[in-house]
Order: sequence, then structure tokens, then C-alpha cells
Amino acid sequence: MSVTFAGGFRASSVTAGLKPSGRPDLALLVGDPGTTVAGLFTTNSVAAAPVVLSRSRLAAGSPRAVLVNSGQANAATGPRGEHDALVSTAAAAAALGIAPEEVLQCSTGVIGEPLHMEQLIEALPKLVAGLGTDGGDGFAEAILTTDTVEKTAATKSGPFRIGGCAKGVGMIAPSLATMLAFITTDAPVGPEDLTSLAADVLAPAFNSLIVDGCTSTNDTVLLFSSGAAGGDPVFLGSPAWHQLSDGLSIVATSLARSLIADGEGAGHVLIVDVDGAGNDDQARTIAKAVAGSMLVKTAAFGGDPNPGRILQAAGAAGVALDASAIDVEIGGVRVAQGGVIPSAYFDDERFAAHAREAMGRDEIGITVRVGAGPGRSRALGCDLSYDYVRINGEYTT
Amino acid sequence: MSVTFAGGFRASSVTAGLKPSGRPDLALLVGDPGTTVAGLFTTNSVAAAPVVLSRSRLAAGSPRAVLVNSGQANAATGPRGEHDALVSTAAAAAALGIAPEEVLQCSTGVIGEPLHMEQLIEALPKLVAGLGTDGGDGFAEAILTTDTVEKTAATKSGPFRIGGCAKGVGMIAPSLATMLAFITTDAPVGPEDLTSLAADVLAPAFNSLIVDGCTSTNDTVLLFSSGAAGGDPVFLGSPAWHQLSDGLSIVATSLARSLIADGEGAGHVLIVDVDGAGNDDQARTIAKAVAGSMLVKTAAFGGDPNPGRILQAAGAAGVALDASAIDVEIGGVRVAQGGVIPSAYFDDERFAAHAREAMGRDEIGITVRVGAGPGRSRALGCDLSYDYVRINGEYTT
Repeated sequence: MSVTFAGGFRASSVTAGLKPSGRPDLALLVGDPGTTVAGLFTTNSVAAAPVVLSRSRLAAGSPRAVLVNSGQANAATGPRGEHDALVSTAAAAAALGIAPEEVLQCSTGVIGEPLHMEQLIEALPKLVAGLGTDGGDGFAEAILTTDTVEKTAATKSGPFRIGGCAKGVGMIAPSLATMLAFITTDAPVGPEDLTSLAADVLAPAFNSLIVDGCTSTNDTVLLFSSGAAGGDPVFLGSPAWHQLSDGLSIVATSLARSLIADGEGAGHVLIVDVDGAGNDDQARTIAKAVAGSMLVKTAAFGGDPNPGRILQAAGAAGVALDASAIDVEIGGVRVAQGGVIPSAYFDDERFAAHAREAMGRDEIGITVRVGAGPGRSRALGCDLSYDYVRINGEYTT
Repeated sequence: MSVTFAGGFRASSVTAGLKPSGRPDLALLVGDPGTTVAGLFTTNSVAAAPVVLSRSRLAAGSPRAVLVNSGQANAATGPRGEHDALVSTAAAAAALGIAPEEVLQCSTGVIGEPLHMEQLIEALPKLVAGLGTDGGDGFAEAILTTDTVEKTAATKSGPFRIGGCAKGVGMIAPSLATMLAFITTDAPVGPEDLTSLAADVLAPAFNSLIVDGCTSTNDTVLLFSSGAAGGDPVFLGSPAWHQLSDGLSIVATSLARSLIADGEGAGHVLIVDVDGAGNDDQARTIAKAVAGSMLVKTAAFGGDPNPGRILQAAGAAGVALDASAIDVEIGGVRVAQGGVIPSAYFDDERFAAHAREAMGRDEIGITVRVGAGPGRSRALGCDLSYDYVRINGEYTT
């Protein structure tokens, strides 16, 4: 399934020896001629070499393949890193018999360590020879770093197939760059409309995630469409636009949920819904402030509802709020009304027990109503556990 | 010492029974008639009742006393909380024989739980009777919540004495509101000049702290001047301005350092200096992003220099940077130059050992040079440890 669920795509993966673990670490996805692609990239000023290369090739031409490696992020590697990105994509293009400009690149792994070029180049012939329409699951495995499971999703929506896979996030691993996601569809979509779909459907789904407030140097989301489904081109306003858009939303939301649930050290997923804000952007800012608050995250780890921390996080989000208009519910239990924590929370053990039960679930639903405005948004987060500190503190790169 | 080191101030403290621990929990500071005061308050939209009261009394009149309690933060307590703040300050004023408008209030403790008014009111006569010029140390103790030590500072600067105390921050405790600081001087300063000193000298010192990125509902810094030192009034441009300003800076910086070092679970202090930014504000934003990054904080806990995380945090601070102009030093060891992590970091064990040694110190100095601009700033942070998660996760309010 994964990225080869939709027609018109072939994928492959090998163990090149880039990762000390000996797991598969090099992957390739190729769309048939005519494939279009749109991309979303990290906003970090310190962008990795493959991000810089892919961004410029997307702007200039019409790529239809992506070479992905895990093990080294090829970030903070300077001119050598730029050179390695050029050489490795050129070598992949030569093996594929296409132009270098048609190949994008994503890298994930240790920041600063140069790409292990010899092993990578040596593995390319086998990688290209292995390309097939059944290569999606192997592709999904080879892009992983400290993830514990592959993250794939696939759906049919009207006449279209949409599939994808992702890695990372959850919790950022030591010196590892974070989130990569690859989504393919067989819908026929031109580059501009595909860019709109990436911005309007994929970006909100992935931007709703918050683990530790850090923005990786390598984050990339790529959306490919092969047109293999045939039929009329899909464009904004065409009959099939909503079918494609809905399908993309299902796949992106599913991948986002998988990413947060596999967070390193995460035992609980925080689903924070904010409504009543002035607009959606303000709601998103508040939702991410609550889902990303270290105090809310540790409270989730401890199963302690702690409404004061939720109020504190919402109030400090940087959006002007009327404190006396804020209601907070945890799993349906109203723990703050009009900005006031009800005295029953402190006096009535049954009330507190209800709230604790809601805060102890695998998926903790927190609703924050901040007024009567039309703005609403959801953020996904996870708890902050001993394991997060262990993984990111004790492990020495 | 503490707040009674400067002439013209009396302080007192008692155990009113507001804290279950049975430690002192109610404190009073009173300046002689003619005392002026300036204040800095939380920017959280969810401000506690004592913050709202103190802010309005400072704007309207000339207070010269502050009643401080630990145990309950009187935040998210609605109209009842506002009423309790009015009643308790009125009762303190009556016992002191001054107007209610002359009394400010600070509260720190559990958010949402109403003030224990009966115990507080009952303790006031004893509190007022105990006022003395030797009450500073008791005052510093009674304002604590989960702090492990009193935080006091005092200095003489020219003809002036300056003393102060603070509580909290470091790490925020479960449902406890955070930082309070009280600084007194015997310099004769009018209200407007005192406000300038608070904004220009105290705010930068306390705003440089970052523990978990959370902004408390109760944060307050109060600066009192009694004029007991005599002499000409001190104003901007007067000969003694710099003496007073320097002394205030020494006391504020010392208190800030004490706060961060007592962070719950903190074993290392992070001192992050940024220079070469476009301006000081941008430098501060970058410095706080590095000092507050969960990945840098866990790296500090693990003694892992991890330059990639520092670059990542600087790059994602929201300030546009030229990645190829960023140099990073940890304890004087250059771990990134021109945005590139030197290959020796990965290849040369002695180089890596130097960097690890620097990252293992009690005070970890990180310097980030981001260009050739004039902007510079320092942020103080601390590591993220198992104890932080234990204190904030396992403890159930």
C-alpha cells in the first residue's frame, strides 16, 4: 500500500549501510512520465541541503522522483552537503535514465554528519533495479529513523486512489531531523492545483502536530499525482475537486495521528480543540500553545487534569483573551467555566475523579472555548514522559 | 538582609495555615510614608485577582505596602477571587492604620483554589505586630512554594542600599503560579523614574529567564524606594542615576541567577549569549529559543553537546538568519562555524571530548554568533531532567 497504492508509481528500498542499525536506509519513489508534484518544506532558517535542492527544483521544473535516505540529515554540512545532494541525485537520475532536475531528495538522521556517499552511490543500481508497484511498504520502512512502526495510509475517494507514508515527529530523536511525508494520487492534477491542495489540505493536517515546539531542518511533505486514474483534469471548482480533497484530508489526518501516537516516550495523545476565537489562526495558536505546553504535557503524563495549567497555557498563547469567557472541558468534564475552576473540583472527590479518568485516557480530548467568535482549530500533541528525557538526554550521539 | 537591607522598610511573616506543609505562608512589607513603588506584571491574559488589584492600585495612587501569601494563587477564581483580594488587603490596611489603596497584593500557590480567607484574616494582627527592620529574611522564606532555598540579594552602590528577594520560576510547580520578586532601595526616587528603572533594569534581568516557556498568571516584580538614604532625588541624568541603576542590576541579576539555579529538577544552568543579530530584540528571541528548546535542555541533562540541536533551535526562532553565518561555541569549544559542524566533531574523539566536558559543567556557556549586526542578548535556562517530569507529572494536585 503506502505510496504505491495509487496507480502510476513505483518504489524501492535497500540497505545501503547508512544507518549503524543495519536496517533499510535508502528509498526511491518514481512517478510515470507526466507526474506532477507539490511540496511543503521546513521554515527553519537552517534548512538542510536536500531541502534547498528540492525547493529549487520544484520551483524550476517538473520533478517526478524522490530519493530518500535515513541515517544522515545532510544538514549543517555546508558546501560539502550541497555537493553531496547534487551528486547523489545526479547518480540516481543517471541510473533511472532521467534528468537530474527530475529527482528531488529528502534526508533524515544525524545533523552535521556528512552523507555516507560511497555506500549510497554503491547501492543505487540495486535500488533502481528493485523498483516496482509493490514497493510502497519497503519505502515506508526505509525512511524511518527512531520510529517504532511504519506509518502508512491509503484511501479511495470517488474515482481516485490516494496513499502515503510518513516518518518521524512524535518526539524528535537525538540529532535526528524530523518529519517526512510522501503522498501519491492517481488523480490528474496540474502543478498549480496540486500546490493549492498541498497548502490547503495537507499543511493544516501536518501543522496541527506539536511535540516539542521544535522545527526540524529537514521537514518535507511531498504530494505526487500521476494522472493514472484517467478522466478529466481535476482543478479547483471541477466536480471531482472535493473527492480528491476529501481523500487527501483522510490520508493526511491519518498519517498525522500515526506520527503523534508513535512519539518517542509518548503514552497519551492530546487532542486539543479550540473554538470561539476571533479567527482560525488565533484558534490554532491557542490550540498549539495548550498541546505544546510542558506543564500540560507533564499533567497528561501524570493523569492529572490540572485545569489551571490549561488556562495558563491558553492565556499565554499571545492572543488577547477575555479570561472570564474561557470554558475548558476534559473528556466532556467541564473543569473551568467563565475562567473559573468550579469549587467542586477541589471539594467533591467524585467530580475530580471524573476529570482524572478523562485525563488518563490514551486519547485525551481537551476543548477550550475562548469566546463567541467563528475561529476554530485542532492541535495534536502528546505527553512528556520519563522516556522522552531518557531518549533525548541519555542517548549520546 | 533581603527587603529590609535598605532603610525605611519593615517586614514580617507568620504561619497562617494556608499551606498544608505548616511552613510560613503570609508576609508583609511596608515602606515608610513617602515610599514610591513601580511594578512589572504578567502578560498572561488569565491574570490572577491580586495582579488585577495591584495593577490598578499602582496606576491610581501611591501604595507603599504589599501583602504576600503562598498556598493559593487566587487565579481562575472569578468574582469571589476579586472579592477576597479586596477584603484581605482592606483588613491588612486597617490593621496597619493606612488606606486600602496603599496596599498591594501578591499570591502564589494552587491555581483555582480560593484563598483560605479565615486563616489569613485571623493571622493579620500577629503579622502586623511582628513588623520590624529585621524581618527581611522571614519575608523571603514565607513567600516560597516549592523552592528549596530562599533567594535574597543585597548590595551597596554609592550612597544607596538595595536589597531584594524572589521566589519560584526555575521550574513551575504543579498548579503553582510562578515568579514573585520584591526589591527595595533607600534611594529617593519619584514614581516615574522608578517605573523607568523597573522597565529598563529589572525587566531585562527577569525576562532573560526561561524555564519551560510558560507565563504564570501571577508573575509580579515590585520595586520600592523609601528615600531613607536622604540626599537629592535621583532622576534620569542625575549624578547618582548610574549608581542606583548599577546596584539594581546587580541585585536583579543575582536574584535571576538564584531562581534559575533552584529550578525544580535542574542540575545545570544554561547561559546562552547571542551576538551579531540585527538588534537586541532579535538576539533575545534567539537566545530564549536556544535556552528554552526541549532538545537543548535534554542535551544539557545528558551532557551531550549536540550542536545540531543548537543550530536547529536558533534557526527556528522566528528571526530570519543566514545559516552560513552562524558560529556556535560551547564553553569556548567551536562546535559550528559558518553553519557547518566541523568534521572533527565526528572524527576526532579528543575534540568531541572537549565539547562534552563543556556541556557537562554546572554552568554551561553557549555562545551563538548569528552575523555581524549590533544586536546582543543573554538568556538563562536550565536542563530538562527526570525530576522535572516527576515533580510536574507524578505529583497530583
